[in-house]
Amino acid sequence: MIAATIGADEPAKETEQRFTMRPIGWIRKAEGKTRIVLDKKYQPGLLGVDKLEEIWVLYWFDRNDAPEHRNVLQVHPRGDPSNPLTGVFATRSPKRPNLIALSRCKILSVEENVIEIDRIDAFPDTPVVDLKP
Amino acid sequence: MIAATIGADEPAKETEQRFTMRPIGWIRKAEGKTRIVLDKKYQPGLLGVDKLEEIWVLYWFDRNDAPEHRNVLQVHPRGDPSNPLTGVFATRSPKRPNLIALSRCKILSVEENVIEIDRIDAFPDTPVVDLKP
Repeated sequence: MIAATIGADEPAKETEQRFTMRPIGWIRKAEGKTRIVLDKKYQPGLLGVDKLEEIWVLYWFDRNDAPEHRNVLQVHPRGDPSNPLTGVFATRSPKRPNLIALSRCKILSVEENVIEIDRIDAFPDTPVVDLKP
Repeated sequence: MIAATIGADEPAKETEQRFTMRPIGWIRKAEGKTRIVLDKKYQPGLLGVDKLEEIWVLYWFDRNDAPEHRNVLQVHPRGDPSNPLTGVFATRSPKRPNLIALSRCKILSVEENVIEIDRIDAFPDTPVVDLKP
């Protein structure tokens, strides 16, 4: 046996790693209110969220899920050409390799699978991927 | 044409959405130092990160990427049975439907594709999926 032999058991290269996420819910906007509506099956995960005043909402920039947006590595912040070119990892740009967005939101109420929040800078029906205290 | 006809153009159900991420880099620990080593191809995305004092590091709990961990919706925080059962979205548990971790880290230096940070509560070689100011 030669230790360096490349065989079927060779682990995948790190650069070939892929991570898959599913939506746990969606941002809904109606009647002047902003809500995170969880997929019913994830409702048990909300136990205790009603005791929090604020929550981190992690969501997916689904409108940008195309190679031309995901290959962007530098932007003029806020789309203003007078702002110097900046690496996406130093900005909150919605164009970036992994389209995760992060917002701190105030919790107004929690009822069953629905969290009402004060506001969020996201399009209606944007998929939510995680919530954290 | 009947508007309600279900055809090939029917959009996928929201619950069937899937989002794929790739690592942009990995957490390396050696010689008492903690570094985020970016895949070289993402280095242009770091332009301006050297001007920040702190950064949000989003990483993937890759050791838990199995259905038995991703199906967990309630935990005893910090694994202590005396802590009341709590929904994962009210905790920082590494068992959750989407295995994203979030840490605020102090930047010590940025050189080429390497960011030295003060510390991070993650295993060595954990994949990093995003950085935000």
